[in-house]
Amino acid sequence: MTAPTSRPFYLDCDTGIDDALALAYLLASPQADVRGIGTVSGNVSAAVGARNTLDLLQLAGHAHIPVALGAHDPLGGSFRGGAPHVHGANGIGEVSLEAASVELASETAAEMLVRLANEHPGTLRVLAIGPLTNIAEALRLEPELPRLVEEITIMGGAALAPGNITAVAEANIANDPEAAADVFAADWNVTLVPLDVTMSNVLEESHRQELLASSGPVPRALGEMLGYYFGFYEGIFGRACSAMHDPLAAALAVGGVRAAVAPLVRVDVDTTFGPGRGQTVCDLRGLYLDYPEQPGARCRVVLSLEDDFAPHLVETLLTFSSESTTAGTIVGAAVV
Amino acid sequence: MTAPTSRPFYLDCDTGIDDALALAYLLASPQADVRGIGTVSGNVSAAVGARNTLDLLQLAGHAHIPVALGAHDPLGGSFRGGAPHVHGANGIGEVSLEAASVELASETAAEMLVRLANEHPGTLRVLAIGPLTNIAEALRLEPELPRLVEEITIMGGAALAPGNITAVAEANIANDPEAAADVFAADWNVTLVPLDVTMSNVLEESHRQELLASSGPVPRALGEMLGYYFGFYEGIFGRACSAMHDPLAAALAVGGVRAAVAPLVRVDVDTTFGPGRGQTVCDLRGLYLDYPEQPGARCRVVLSLEDDFAPHLVETLLTFSSESTTAGTIVGAAVV
Repeated sequence: MTAPTSRPFYLDCDTGIDDALALAYLLASPQADVRGIGTVSGNVSAAVGARNTLDLLQLAGHAHIPVALGAHDPLGGSFRGGAPHVHGANGIGEVSLEAASVELASETAAEMLVRLANEHPGTLRVLAIGPLTNIAEALRLEPELPRLVEEITIMGGAALAPGNITAVAEANIANDPEAAADVFAADWNVTLVPLDVTMSNVLEESHRQELLASSGPVPRALGEMLGYYFGFYEGIFGRACSAMHDPLAAALAVGGVRAAVAPLVRVDVDTTFGPGRGQTVCDLRGLYLDYPEQPGARCRVVLSLEDDFAPHLVETLLTFSSESTTAGTIVGAAVV
Repeated sequence: MTAPTSRPFYLDCDTGIDDALALAYLLASPQADVRGIGTVSGNVSAAVGARNTLDLLQLAGHAHIPVALGAHDPLGGSFRGGAPHVHGANGIGEVSLEAASVELASETAAEMLVRLANEHPGTLRVLAIGPLTNIAEALRLEPELPRLVEEITIMGGAALAPGNITAVAEANIANDPEAAADVFAADWNVTLVPLDVTMSNVLEESHRQELLASSGPVPRALGEMLGYYFGFYEGIFGRACSAMHDPLAAALAVGGVRAAVAPLVRVDVDTTFGPGRGQTVCDLRGLYLDYPEQPGARCRVVLSLEDDFAPHLVETLLTFSSESTTAGTIVGAAVV
């Protein structure tokens, strides 16, 4: 682990149960100073994601962090309604949070990212855990963005693992392949956190119970949400547990966990309308020689971890004690 | 292993060093009765592959097996010259075999396959270890082919492993994606032997030395060819050894080795001109639940083996003693 030097972060999300965990993880991490959050349609619409984000920030005592509404539709089409079977109709597992009193920022998510990049040139870190529409729009607004941003970490794609939307495509990329193609083609260093590593680092029911047993409303709310999420993942894994997509990307972005195998390779996004649409085509042919250097490679693809992620995640989330939040309360929670 | 009941086989190949091993393996296997061989452009042109096949058959004392010339060009384009860096300019690692005295069959490879399928309705087994052009042409000539053929085993594609021509495409499929798409869309049961299993079952230098030490000209010739092949694979694996693509497909087709993990899944071939062109898109999303039944699935994708393949291959090839061949001699062998 690196010394906890706090870095300015822009978070782009589609909140979402695992987005909620990622947000809480970031807020609890001394290495991250979240300066702004943009939302995008993905798990839910950008607008619902923004409401969830505001409510969670208030619950966590961070209502001062500005939230900007981002793109409702992907670059090349229309938002198709999200994933209520995974995240619940409200996006956070039918858990009801007290409505935040603060309003959305007056800028768009892409504008916020561009502003923050110019305010923190060379030091801003971007964590993108939804479809990449806002990031692609920001690249159009500010061609210097790749130079201004220190690092971008993306949860998305599948390298050697199967997809989760099609046989080869993961949801964040599949929801806006054209935006993803622009983002991967830009001249910056990307860390990609694909299904290869998020599906093999799962949260178990025992971890969820630790969150539910907390005295803090944030861990308890997250534990409630995870009940819904576990219900969906039972159909994937055959037991009550869940993949940890977004919080794992957050932990890698702040250095809370370390990658074990993470080759720097070329990545293309499939924007055809064939069976590979939305696939992150990662050139991992160097596998048999421990990934020799690859000309033109700009994307570090995380394939495995040094550390056991779930205990670290739970430990970090449990730092939200009842004292650490100001006025947040859970209004109600669905029985799962 | 099943009892060695001999089954009629049609072999479609692009001979090729590993094709030569597959052919020799089939000839040495009591479970296979090779009734005809068609060639297709791939590792070498269909014509060069046919000459290599005839010469090998004569060396092995099987000059009676008819060899038919198949497609020179893929369905949608032109043959691009093969892989001399892998197989040598002559396709068999610069090893010179005595030229066979027999001629090619008067029928095409596709016509031969259709004829054999009609002569052995419901019992013919097809082993396709080159691009699938001839098989696609046979499907056009005889729409009943899927009903007439008992089983088709294909060496090709990559499921969860990287490709070997592009990041996601394997050579046999990439050389004629349109033909492959037709073959995978046909109403028959396919066994696919992809890079996932052929790259993880390698032949080592010690195995090659066993072949070279044989008194039989066939194992010795194969051992010489493998010297060239090992030279190429040293760049992939970092040591003198080789993948065993085609002979492994042959061994699975005759039941000489058994698959361990081989889910029955849907497979699409990417025929777009995007980064996924030539990919076998195998729907392996059921991975986390040990592959539950999948509606519409017709392709068994072999991902791992029960048995250790290399010793079985060497043992089988060594049954070609000097006595078992009639007139074959190696004219010369390149120093590798």
